[in-house]
This record gives sequence, structure tokens and C-alpha cells, in this order.
Amino acid sequence: MSNNIVDVSKLYFRYGAMNSGKSTALLQAAYNYEERSQVVLIAKPSIDIRGDKAIVSRLGVTREVDFLVVPEADLRKDFADYSKIALERTGKPVACLLIDEAQFLTPEQVDQAMQVAVLDGVPVLAYGIRGDFLTKGFPGSLRLLEVAHSIEELKTICRCGRKALFNARLVDSRFVFAGDQVAIDGFDVTYESLCAGCYLREQANANHDSQLG
Amino acid sequence: MSNNIVDVSKLYFRYGAMNSGKSTALLQAAYNYEERSQVVLIAKPSIDIRGDKAIVSRLGVTREVDFLVVPEADLRKDFADYSKIALERTGKPVACLLIDEAQFLTPEQVDQAMQVAVLDGVPVLAYGIRGDFLTKGFPGSLRLLEVAHSIEELKTICRCGRKALFNARLVDSRFVFAGDQVAIDGFDVTYESLCAGCYLREQANANHDSQLG
Amino acid sequence: MSNNIVDVSKLYFRYGAMNSGKSTALLQAAYNYEERSQVVLIAKPSIDIRGDKAIVSRLGVTREVDFLVVPEADLRKDFADYSKIALERTGKPVACLLIDEAQFLTPEQVDQAMQVAVLDGVPVLAYGIRGDFLTKGFPGSLRLLEVAHSIEELKTICRCGRKALFNARLVDSRFVFAGDQVAIDGFDVTYESLCAGCYLREQANANHDSQLG
Amino acid sequence: MSNNIVDVSKLYFRYGAMNSGKSTALLQAAYNYEERSQVVLIAKPSIDIRGDKAIVSRLGVTREVDFLVVPEADLRKDFADYSKIALERTGKPVACLLIDEAQFLTPEQVDQAMQVAVLDGVPVLAYGIRGDFLTKGFPGSLRLLEVAHSIEELKTICRCGRKALFNARLVDSRFVFAGDQVAIDGFDVTYESLCAGCYLREQANANHDSQLG
Repeated sequence: MSNNIVDVSKLYFRYGAMNSGKSTALLQAAYNYEERSQVVLIAKPSIDIRGDKAIVSRLGVTREVDFLVVPEADLRKDFADYSKIALERTGKPVACLLIDEAQFLTPEQVDQAMQVAVLDGVPVLAYGIRGDFLTKGFPGSLRLLEVAHSIEELKTICRCGRKALFNARLVDSRFVFAGDQVAIDGFDVTYESLCAGCYLREQANANHDSQLG
Repeated sequence: MSNNIVDVSKLYFRYGAMNSGKSTALLQAAYNYEERSQVVLIAKPSIDIRGDKAIVSRLGVTREVDFLVVPEADLRKDFADYSKIALERTGKPVACLLIDEAQFLTPEQVDQAMQVAVLDGVPVLAYGIRGDFLTKGFPGSLRLLEVAHSIEELKTICRCGRKALFNARLVDSRFVFAGDQVAIDGFDVTYESLCAGCYLREQANANHDSQLG
Repeated sequence: MSNNIVDVSKLYFRYGAMNSGKSTALLQAAYNYEERSQVVLIAKPSIDIRGDKAIVSRLGVTREVDFLVVPEADLRKDFADYSKIALERTGKPVACLLIDEAQFLTPEQVDQAMQVAVLDGVPVLAYGIRGDFLTKGFPGSLRLLEVAHSIEELKTICRCGRKALFNARLVDSRFVFAGDQVAIDGFDVTYESLCAGCYLREQANANHDSQLG
Repeated sequence: MSNNIVDVSKLYFRYGAMNSGKSTALLQAAYNYEERSQVVLIAKPSIDIRGDKAIVSRLGVTREVDFLVVPEADLRKDFADYSKIALERTGKPVACLLIDEAQFLTPEQVDQAMQVAVLDGVPVLAYGIRGDFLTKGFPGSLRLLEVAHSIEELKTICRCGRKALFNARLVDSRFVFAGDQVAIDGFDVTYESLCAGCYLREQANANHDSQLG
């Protein structure tokens, strides 16, 4: 009998609106591997400066990433280098690469992540958001949506109870629909995950206000 | 670099309410394999007598199954026997086993289908409904829900526009909520796929009527 | 233009092998609701005595359930009673019912959970495992698999790197394939989540050993 | 008890590699609605000229679309116009909009499809491929991946038995990796759906050949 469905490892894109629990899910996945005595590497793009090298789950769990991916980095080479270090330290090959805030990868780095999965045989779990506050994709998430073996949604809800789709930006507590694609949330800039209906309504309101103003 | 995620073939359960297009999906899957010059086998439990050996899609496509599975059959042995015949005829090993009306398999036959996937390395795609007209699972579908690697829904709609979940039975055009688990639809017995809300409403109506009557 | 797809709330069954992170996912879902100033209720069957009233995530997060469901309880009535208390306390209706260890619900309680979703308009998220150490479903999980609007898998891996499907039982560190359906893990009884291939192999080994012994 | 999860209709993107059965799935979905006496509209971008106004399923089923979407069209207005005609003809509002070859919509038309779902309350089922022969998304599919409520895969297999991801182009039976994004398959141009591994291998072979040549 033939065995002609020998799957290789896959590149997974697990996307969700902001505050849908992506970091929690990543940390749980890492825990699942390690509980079975397997070795994982965790990375994130260096552009995400919020937690320095930390991944911070809103449930209160934190952990340092193994390496930061700078924009010009070759992710496959980085992975190979850190895998070698992990192998020397643990005596085991790396079983999984986990990437947080994967929307900030470059398209080339997503292709390199695909190569890690397909050519190096190590599954890659990439967690990130789909789009910015104007519903446009980030370079990394667009490429992941184009090529990932599996696209899986992590759901959260809008304030109206429906599933949230979009990440609306607030400046000084007012929704804004113009600005740079990346503005890390902090004192004056915050985000709220909204369903499509609430997003379209806030957008219409903002247009109306700006015409009045 | 290790390759420690070499997946074996899987047992898939693709379930849907009646008239959700399961036979169409099965025939399309068979077509996809054959278009790539691969060989498939199609089976169905002999208890489903509607089309004799034919699989009839409501879109108008029909095809004969390769073998019928009688209740006492060892599905894995049947598969091995028919694979040998296919190999002699085509010169190729069988790449996929497709099963229609899989809810009528016995639990033991589902375990044998799992063994075809896991031990013989041939993926098994089982199509069927989850439950009977009283929302109780059939022996085959319950076992598939317990053990399938992947549970995937084929959706259809209720008359109210919501997703249909249940298969309500009508006798002489009236909903009934008592009777044998298996009653193939025909002249007096028909089925309508309903959402949970419409099902509960019709059930309450029928109870009310029977108390009046 | 019509709006004929107004969905009601749904009953979700999110299943996974033991140690796949179900409690973490439940706590994250509760957090997502509460972060949006919505009120949730968390319940679990009283048969699960491991954490008393606590839900303990292996990531280190813990939380008390709002109520325990005893086997003879009417879950819909319990939910109504605790919703009233929550409404008095918070001034808000309950937006979601979350159930941990849902495999231990009775089939009737699953039907009541369906009624909470369909008739009371409150979504129900039920987290649990599919089957016992012999791959047979629990009463609650079988009913959930029969009727849930949505069946979603929380994945974890087997020691071999494949996806885990089954929950094998060990007594004094040896796999056993006979015994009661429920044996909460503790000093001598433990569980390991295995893929189908590793499960079948350990089962064959155990049969071989017992014939030798 | 509150009912705060009243979903609106959704925009679905059902994607798959070429020859995965998307047209069959669309025709089956249309059939499911009509069998329940509901009215649907079927559209496709005019850029897809293969079947004129016909949707041709490789299983042998064909059907004319209700309207073609030209690149400069306002899809929401088109939908409203054809809905009015359908209402006059059938006495019923349109229950669903189905779109074939949705990768050829403009991004603006995808936003208009979203408005049909969210603001007009009519679900939109968009079927299409993700990317071109160089694995880059089409304008319509990229926008659908950015905003669809639900992203669902229709699977097919590579010649090696793995799941196909990419649509490789052949000119005179040789794989090519340069050319226009759109080249409808015909006498000299054909396509083959490949998994990531086979795609990367053919790409490396083609590079090697072109360096030799």
C-alpha cells in the first residue's frame, strides 16, 4: 500500500484582531511542546518595541523571545544559527519555530519562514493581525495570507457582541482614519477591535465630524 | 535539521445536514484525484439502498461506487482486496478511499477506516450526516466524531436563512418526532434540514398537536 | 433588501486532547469579554474535582468558576439563576456562558446549553476532551459532537511531533487499556496525549505484554 | 436575557488552488438556496472570459451568471439593480450573492461586497484563488483576505499527494516563472496546482535551466 500523503511541516498563520489572545496562544503552544520535552524557538520582529524582548500575554504570562528579527535579517539563516545554539545547549533539534507579531515580518522573511517549514522540515507558527487601522494588510500579514499552508482565526468580540474584524485607532479617545500605518499603542494612541458594522459606523461619524469641523 | 512532523495520512469526517451537497463534494474530490492521474476507491454502506450502487449528486452527477460495505464486513480487508484489483487494472496503488453515507458504517468499520489511514498510509474521506431526525448520532457518525483526525462541516441553510443543523422528518408532510432511526426518504417520508431554532419550534408544535389530538 | 440571516447565538464545542490548553483558551475568552466591559459566567461539572472550584491553566493562571453543575442540575435554570445574581451585581445581562470540562456534562445538560444559546440568546462556549483513555466519548462530549453549532479543535502534539488525538492512561508509568472511564489524574494515574499511530502501537505492546504476563 | 450576538450577514472568501472544485461548490451552494425556494444572484468579473457568461464546473455542470462585473462597476449598485429585477420576477428578495473568480474583483468591489453583507444584510459567498503563478495575490483576493469575515479553504492535491497551495504556469508544457499576472489557460498556457515543495523544486529547476540556456 502506498504512503503518498507524507506531509512536510507547514507554515501556519494564526491571525486575530488586536487583543484576541494571540500571545497567550503562542505561549500555550510553546508550553505544549516543552511539556513533551521538545525544544522550540520564539522570535519576533524587532520593529515591535513594546515589550523589548518580552512577549506579554494580557493574562499575565510573560516570556523572553529567543531572538529578534531585524528588517534586513534572513530569517532562515537566523533560525539555523539559533537552532545550532539550542542543539548544543539541549542536545535536541528544534521542533517548532513560533513567531509573534508576524505582521511586521518583511515579505521576504515570510518566504524564508515557508522555507524553514518546507525545506528544513520544522513547523512554523506565525501569530499576527491581518490589517492596520485602515483595514489594509501589513507587509508580513499580506504575504502570510498569500502563502501559508493554513490560515486560522483567533476570535474576539466587538463591543456590540459580534466578532471583531478590524483594529480601529483612537487618538486621545477619538477614532481617527488617517495617519501612519504603524503607531504602537501607548499614552495617546490606543486601539479597539471592532466588527465591520461598528467600524463602518465610526468611520462615517468621523467623516461627518471632519466635514463639520 | 530534524523533520519530526512527518504526518501520516488522515481520516477525515466531512459532515453536513441532509441535502448539503455531500455527494457532490465526494464526487469532486474523486475527480480532483483522477485529474492528477491518481486512483481512488469509492465505497458506501450497503444499508443505503437509495441509489443501488450509484452515488447521485443533486446537481445531476452520478457515479457507481467501487464496492458496497455490508454490516459484517471488515472494511480494511475489503479495501485491501479492492486495492489489489485496482493495482492490477491500473498499475497504480490507490491514493484515497472515499466513503459516502458514512453514518451507516458500524463503529468497528470506522476503526478499520482509521487503520487504513494510519497503518496503510491511505487517506480516508468519509462523508455523512451527524444525526437522525431526533438529533441522535448514527453509530458510524458517532464513532467518526470520536476518532477522526479532522472534522469538517459542509454547510447548508435552513428555510429561515440560518445554518441548518438537524434533519427533521416529515411523514405525509407533517413533522414527526417518533419512529425508527432509519427511514429512507421516499413517497411518504421526507426530510428537511432545519436550524436549531426552527427544529425546537416544530418539535414544540408537534407536542402541542399530539396533546390536543 | 432583506436581512434573512440573523443568526442566533451559538453553542460552540472546542475540543482538544488533554493538555492542549483548553483552560487557558477559556480564561482568555473570558478575559476578552471582560476587557470589553461585558459580563460572563463560568461553570464546570462538579464531577471534576481536581481544582475544587478553580480552573487552573497550566500556564499558571487560575480563576474560580461562578458555579458548579451537579449531575442532576438543570443547566438552563442554573444559568438563569446565576444570571439574575450577576445582573443585580453588575447592572448588566450576561454576555456569554463558558463551561470547562464539558465532557462531564450529562446529555440533558448539553441540550439545556443549546437552549441557552438558541432560546435565551446567550452564546455558550464549551471546552472539553472528546474521548476517554479507550477513545470512547464521554456522555457530554458525545452530545456536544451531535448538536453543537460549531466544532473547533484545539491542537497539541504527540511526543512524535504529530497532532495528538487520544488520551492514553498510564498507571505507575505503564500504559493501560482497561479500567473505569473516569480516573482523575494524580499520583499513580497519569495521561499522555498521543497521535493515532503511537496509540495503536502502545495498545499493541500492552496486549503483547499481557499475553506474555 | 440579552440577545447581544445578533450577527449580520457575512462576507465569505472560499479560496482554493486552481482545479479544486470552486465552481462546483458555488453551483452546489446556489442549488441549496434554490431548493429551499430562495433566490440567489450569481456574478463574476468580466475579466474572466473563459466561459463567456457561463460558470463551468469540471464535473460537467454549467450555468449562466446573472450579471458580469466590469472593472469600473459599483458592485453594490449592480447588486441592488439586479435584486430589484429578481424581486419583480420572483416576488422575493435576494437571499445570497455568489461570486465566481472573485480574485478578479477590484479592491473597491470587495469593499462593496462587504457593504452588501454588512449594510444590506445579504450574505456574500466569494470563490476564488489566492495567488498567481508567482504566488502573488490578485487584487481581489488580497482584499478578500484582508477583510472577509470568514476565510475557508477548498482543498485539492498536488501530484505528489500533498495539499496543493500554488498555481504553477506551463507554457508549451514547461514551467515558467516570468510573465503577465493574467494569462487565461488555453492551448499553449496551462496551469498545475502544486504543493509548496514541488513548486520550489520546479522553480529551482527552471532557474537552473535558464542559466544553462
